Amino acid sequence: MNPDILNERQKATFDVEKLTNILNGGLEKTKRRREIESMVLNDPGFEEEDPNFLSRSERYDQAVRKSAQMILKLREYGIADPEEIYCYKSCVHPGRPDPFDLHLGMFLPTLLNQATSEQMDRFFMPAWNLEIIGTYAQTEMGHGTHLRGLETTATYDPATQEFILNSPTVSSIKWWPGGLGKTSNHAIVLAQLYTRGNCHGLHAFIVPIRDMDTHKPLPGIVVGDIGPKFGFNEVDNGFLKLDHVRIPRENMLMKYAKLDPDGTYVKPPSAKLTYGTMVFIRSMIVGESARALAKSSTIAIRYSVVRHQSEIRPGGPEPQILDYQTQQYKLFPVLAMAYAFTFVGQYMNQMYHRITGDINQGDFSELPELHALSAGLKAFTTWAANSAIEVCRMSCGGHGYSRSSALPDIYVEFTPTCTYEGENTVMMLQTARYLMKSYRQARAGQRLHGIVSYLNESEHQRIQPQLVAARSTGLDINDLSSLVEIYKLRAATLVELAAKSIQKELQHKKSQEDAWNNSAIDLVRASDAHCHYVVVKLFADKLGEIDAATIHSVLLTLARLYALHGISNNSGDFLQAGLLNGSQMLQITTCIKELLSELRPNAVALVDAFDIHDRMLNSVLGRYDGNVYEHMFEWARRSPLNSTEVHESYHKYLKPLRSKL
Amino acid sequence: MNPDILNERQKATFDVEKLTNILNGGLEKTKRRREIESMVLNDPGFEEEDPNFLSRSERYDQAVRKSAQMILKLREYGIADPEEIYCYKSCVHPGRPDPFDLHLGMFLPTLLNQATSEQMDRFFMPAWNLEIIGTYAQTEMGHGTHLRGLETTATYDPATQEFILNSPTVSSIKWWPGGLGKTSNHAIVLAQLYTRGNCHGLHAFIVPIRDMDTHKPLPGIVVGDIGPKFGFNEVDNGFLKLDHVRIPRENMLMKYAKLDPDGTYVKPPSAKLTYGTMVFIRSMIVGESARALAKSSTIAIRYSVVRHQSEIRPGGPEPQILDYQTQQYKLFPVLAMAYAFTFVGQYMNQMYHRITGDINQGDFSELPELHALSAGLKAFTTWAANSAIEVCRMSCGGHGYSRSSALPDIYVEFTPTCTYEGENTVMMLQTARYLMKSYRQARAGQRLHGIVSYLNESEHQRIQPQLVAARSTGLDINDLSSLVEIYKLRAATLVELAAKSIQKELQHKKSQEDAWNNSAIDLVRASDAHCHYVVVKLFADKLGEIDAATIHSVLLTLARLYALHGISNNSGDFLQAGLLNGSQMLQITTCIKELLSELRPNAVALVDAFDIHDRMLNSVLGRYDGNVYEHMFEWARRSPLNSTEVHESYHKYLKPLRSKL
Repeated sequence: MNPDILNERQKATFDVEKLTNILNGGLEKTKRRREIESMVLNDPGFEEEDPNFLSRSERYDQAVRKSAQMILKLREYGIADPEEIYCYKSCVHPGRPDPFDLHLGMFLPTLLNQATSEQMDRFFMPAWNLEIIGTYAQTEMGHGTHLRGLETTATYDPATQEFILNSPTVSSIKWWPGGLGKTSNHAIVLAQLYTRGNCHGLHAFIVPIRDMDTHKPLPGIVVGDIGPKFGFNEVDNGFLKLDHVRIPRENMLMKYAKLDPDGTYVKPPSAKLTYGTMVFIRSMIVGESARALAKSSTIAIRYSVVRHQSEIRPGGPEPQILDYQTQQYKLFPVLAMAYAFTFVGQYMNQMYHRITGDINQGDFSELPELHALSAGLKAFTTWAANSAIEVCRMSCGGHGYSRSSALPDIYVEFTPTCTYEGENTVMMLQTARYLMKSYRQARAGQRLHGIVSYLNESEHQRIQPQLVAARSTGLDINDLSSLVEIYKLRAATLVELAAKSIQKELQHKKSQEDAWNNSAIDLVRASDAHCHYVVVKLFADKLGEIDAATIHSVLLTLARLYALHGISNNSGDFLQAGLLNGSQMLQITTCIKELLSELRPNAVALVDAFDIHDRMLNSVLGRYDGNVYEHMFEWARRSPLNSTEVHESYHKYLKPLRSKL
Repeated sequence: MNPDILNERQKATFDVEKLTNILNGGLEKTKRRREIESMVLNDPGFEEEDPNFLSRSERYDQAVRKSAQMILKLREYGIADPEEIYCYKSCVHPGRPDPFDLHLGMFLPTLLNQATSEQMDRFFMPAWNLEIIGTYAQTEMGHGTHLRGLETTATYDPATQEFILNSPTVSSIKWWPGGLGKTSNHAIVLAQLYTRGNCHGLHAFIVPIRDMDTHKPLPGIVVGDIGPKFGFNEVDNGFLKLDHVRIPRENMLMKYAKLDPDGTYVKPPSAKLTYGTMVFIRSMIVGESARALAKSSTIAIRYSVVRHQSEIRPGGPEPQILDYQTQQYKLFPVLAMAYAFTFVGQYMNQMYHRITGDINQGDFSELPELHALSAGLKAFTTWAANSAIEVCRMSCGGHGYSRSSALPDIYVEFTPTCTYEGENTVMMLQTARYLMKSYRQARAGQRLHGIVSYLNESEHQRIQPQLVAARSTGLDINDLSSLVEIYKLRAATLVELAAKSIQKELQHKKSQEDAWNNSAIDLVRASDAHCHYVVVKLFADKLGEIDAATIHSVLLTLARLYALHGISNNSGDFLQAGLLNGSQMLQITTCIKELLSELRPNAVALVDAFDIHDRMLNSVLGRYDGNVYEHMFEWARRSPLNSTEVHESYHKYLKPLRSKL
């Protein structure tokens, strides 16, 4: 153990294990997670070569090998709970998506939700037994988030009782689905349903794409890998071009919408049913944001206590770089954010489960708010985490650029969350639509409930400038609930600003749609402020559940740092709304510095509490024992370019060059 | 040609070619650049496989092949001017560093600057003829920016008149130098010089590391590649461990400092001589920031007029995504920044040449300011460009993640500029040190000249709140010089704030050093504001040189957008200092929206003016002809994973799995 990091651990003021249990959602959950981790980490079947040393094809090959092994082991151990499967998979492919992700995460669940019992018999068990390997083919080259624009057609032919699936244009080629390129032999294809000359919009069809025995593409199918990407090297994201491919009528997923043999279309009962899934996936993504931040901050903070550099006092010893205020100012807000988003993820998960119960009892009342909130929080947390990962990477100096640090990989594997499952700007505008609707309702005298209740007129009056002036002098920056309050008032102000922008545009005789587009900047700002308020509020709420005084104390420091750092970074909003004045802003800067110093002794313990196993972290900089340099040297020597002393290019190009000059 | 992009070009209000000439620094420069480009692009010797489809070793191999060819061709064409060599190289390895970069950019120039004439004879011509291939080995595993901390030793042995070079610890292993791993047979090694028991600090030594014939590492040398990185795949960044390696006394670079045969050390005349080189390299990096932004915005803006998505009006046609206000708000500020940084780069380059002239005449007076400014501007522009590249990438939706977009590569090849040649936070603190010194001088009644003259007392008084209140009401947000003025006042305010923070710390009996460290956040903010002011000012100054009315008009729109967007993003600073009030901030938001609309018709023409050849851009999304989708499909089909219809992993793992389940 590196003596610096040992010393850091001795300075901690709280019980790390207890905090780990809080982060995991209870002692039992920690225990079970560690059990699953050790199943995988002690299984020689999952040993691997460092993917950084492999070619793309070798990486894919290794991932398929491990995924196949994983399926066997999950059966052997009888692991069937989705959360446990997810945990197991995360150990098998630490931090990396894999070729089976869409089979397990989209193909099987879609069958469960949308297949008839006849279809379950025909498809689910073969898929469960990996005879059928499937993917979910929605996105096309020309259309992503805007589903109505998808061009793939499924035209019903009553003569043969078949659908004809077709990609009419280059831009209609299915593009991006994971596992589509090489792995899957079936795809759930989303296509515009045409019957009797009418289009009934997007529906899901099960399309066989490869021969069940030879695995060769079937007639009419052009399928392949979409080529190298920023990350996702293990996944064969694919393309699929359908040339009048015929499938039986019974391959349309018909639990809700139906098509009779004669071509009569029967509408589904409700569109809201799919909201639940979206909420679930987005709450998972919030959790991914938290995990990416936990990993990044673990690496950067551990390295920053091992790394010594430069001098604070001339001639003095080189300090640990975490002793520089600038380094603390980069990393501790990220640490605070990692905690904040962990608690937001927990909240959303609980909400999802509660509301799923409600939905099963026919109560959809809370769904619109949660749906809108999940869109915004997905965007808010992924954008924030995306930048923060890079802050961590760059805080490690040159070594942050080495693949051995793991930070480049964390970034490239995480950044797609900003785009998939709903592009972030579009998500923010969805939340804004809900906020604008709520604002209008409140203005019309309707009483709002839930998180948007701050838009109620009575609450709302509080943000009139004259009242604010009184308020801001009364603000106690040391009081977390006071900070939650001003985040709420900022959100209310920006929601109102966006609404007024729309009104102004309408007064200038713009159409509703142009007014909306011409206010889009304000709308995104309003959603952002709304989400920021929710995050601060949930962090504060979480503190109410924590009994242990030492843990409460350190989490309060983190929560205050999270809130004040957010105010400092968005100070214009608070000043402009009169929620703070200039001298309070100065106090906040001073207070942030104090909080950084306060956190310094607990920094390593706070990342230790994330309890990320070295083999899951896979970073020479973030090692638990702090022995960074030896392992970096050892890793580099294994690099493929070092397999020979002299690279062949010397004999091919460099030596011959001399005679030519 | 895609009709959308054709239509965009027809809307332009100015002559694109004229603007290209302004960006290139004159008609002649444009012409010469295009000549060099066509030399390379028409030369079959430079044809290449897309590096995205190659393994690391193949990428390195291809790069060495092309670099060797480049050396031959430069001789053949007699190209010897450093700027022309740089231009040629940029075409040979578009957007990618290569294994010879340090040989050409550091090894040869260091010999020129620091070798004696005897050493020039021994080393320069063999290096010019590529018998000697060299690199510059400064950074060690344990130390980067802090040069005094480097641990490699060069101990003089008068008995044999040799230096003994040694890496005493793991952390002292040389780490990162480009071309060190496999390519170079010599290295200029920076080491602490020990003679007669005393250390005389860092000096440069020429160390042979590989056999001139076999290219095998010499005795006592452990050398190799440091392994895969975030980008820089073509470069063999290397490590070098020296085990008591003996070199003759004459291999120390002795143009300035000297060591006599008996071990007597003779000091160099001045340390300032190396400042010039640093200024030069940093001004080059500012130019790199501009080029990276030019490329990224070209790709994102062209793609945004070709891509249609969603609907502004229900049932209406899908608009070009550049018609969304949010998309304009992402991309047009980046476009404005690309122009701003181009002009800053031009200014620094001119300054460097002018001051080099002064230095040659013994006048060092302007050097400290330029040195300080170049540090800050290097950090300011690279940080800003770094984020902006990712904004561009993410504005392209899913396709921005494909390597075919080129955006991932632009990011990974650019982001190291934030760290190398002086880590950005350290650079900002260097600038801050100059600002604090200037502030104290001004306070002591000294009259400052140059860019920091705004810190003079007389200027400075203007920022007293009562005067500011009068000023802010008089501010004209439509007047660029008025915006330059408030950027200046913001800088003055933040410099003062940082100075006061240091004073306050000192009053609390802190040492100078602790006071500095405890004010580091404020110091970085002050430098940032200073640099931001300089950039806005230089953009405004540049407009004064532009005659053509249509070009002046569109550049003025860009400059105003750059300035107002910066105010909006840092509104807290301006509000807190009383330089703006809340209602002016609202006006600014409205004005930004107007500027976005104003720029919309010229967007494509403004990126066309960067005149980046398709083969240099290498992006299917950014193609000049806008034919995106066909080429994306064509590119994907060439992906190595598609070289077989069925990947071998199917037979190895997937098919056998069925029988086990």
